[in-house]
Amino acid sequence: MDETHKHYWEDFHPGDTAPMGEKRMDAEEMLAFASAYDPQPFHVDDAAARRSIYGGLIASGWHTVALVMRMMVDSYLNASASLGSPGVENVRWMKPVRPGDTIRATRTVLETRASASRPEMGIVKSRWEVFNQNDEMVMTMEGYGMFERRNPGKAK
Amino acid sequence: MDETHKHYWEDFHPGDTAPMGEKRMDAEEMLAFASAYDPQPFHVDDAAARRSIYGGLIASGWHTVALVMRMMVDSYLNASASLGSPGVENVRWMKPVRPGDTIRATRTVLETRASASRPEMGIVKSRWEVFNQNDEMVMTMEGYGMFERRNPGKAK
Repeated sequence: MDETHKHYWEDFHPGDTAPMGEKRMDAEEMLAFASAYDPQPFHVDDAAARRSIYGGLIASGWHTVALVMRMMVDSYLNASASLGSPGVENVRWMKPVRPGDTIRATRTVLETRASASRPEMGIVKSRWEVFNQNDEMVMTMEGYGMFERRNPGKAK
Repeated sequence: MDETHKHYWEDFHPGDTAPMGEKRMDAEEMLAFASAYDPQPFHVDDAAARRSIYGGLIASGWHTVALVMRMMVDSYLNASASLGSPGVENVRWMKPVRPGDTIRATRTVLETRASASRPEMGIVKSRWEVFNQNDEMVMTMEGYGMFERRNPGKAK
């Protein structure tokens, strides 16, 4: 990409909000993900899932997170000077995501701060909200991103 | 499995701790996961990763979480009356996981409580700690599991 158009830490401001696109929870991919990483009966066994409290197969919550991560990368991280993440918090799975559901997500900047130890880096705290095709909130998450500073060590 | 040996909510006690086994971060699987869900340069582009602050390719933090999830399922969740999870918190990625690393994880029960609204269900809060082959802590996470009660509505 054109380096001059990269988003640096200075370009994130509390209250900034933007859509991140949408992704379909494909039934085949859902089973492959759950079989590899989360093979609980209600994720991989159709008959067991129908007898469960969920009444049918549901996606691993981590698969939903993975699709949201991909939306983050495509919608803004790969157009930014991202340095990775030290962590996330308050991951909440409020409603099941089912095969064939389409989820969309939004991001909101909660706060930004310079790194105390690394003058070339700043931290951005964000909140992500995820909705299904019926506009029901299915997941929320908050977390931290590390970004290069355009002007290391300077006041924002 | 033999239903009489299932772990119900009553079988989890604060302070219980146990190893959950280990998993190798396979280089090919690492690239496939990152290409699908987290295609940032330091996860998928060897040359860009070498120029980055990480000095080489590192696993998506979500791939580490996914391997830990699989360890949870194999080591205790599929031997329990698990009803899924409402969420996790305090996910911290402290050190990169690199191709070929072997990670191991432990679980510790932090607290248990009956569900106020659903007498047939109880909640278990756990902490998971993840180490690499050099016994360096690479990740921690806390979260909630929902489990069937052996004796719905009774005092524990």
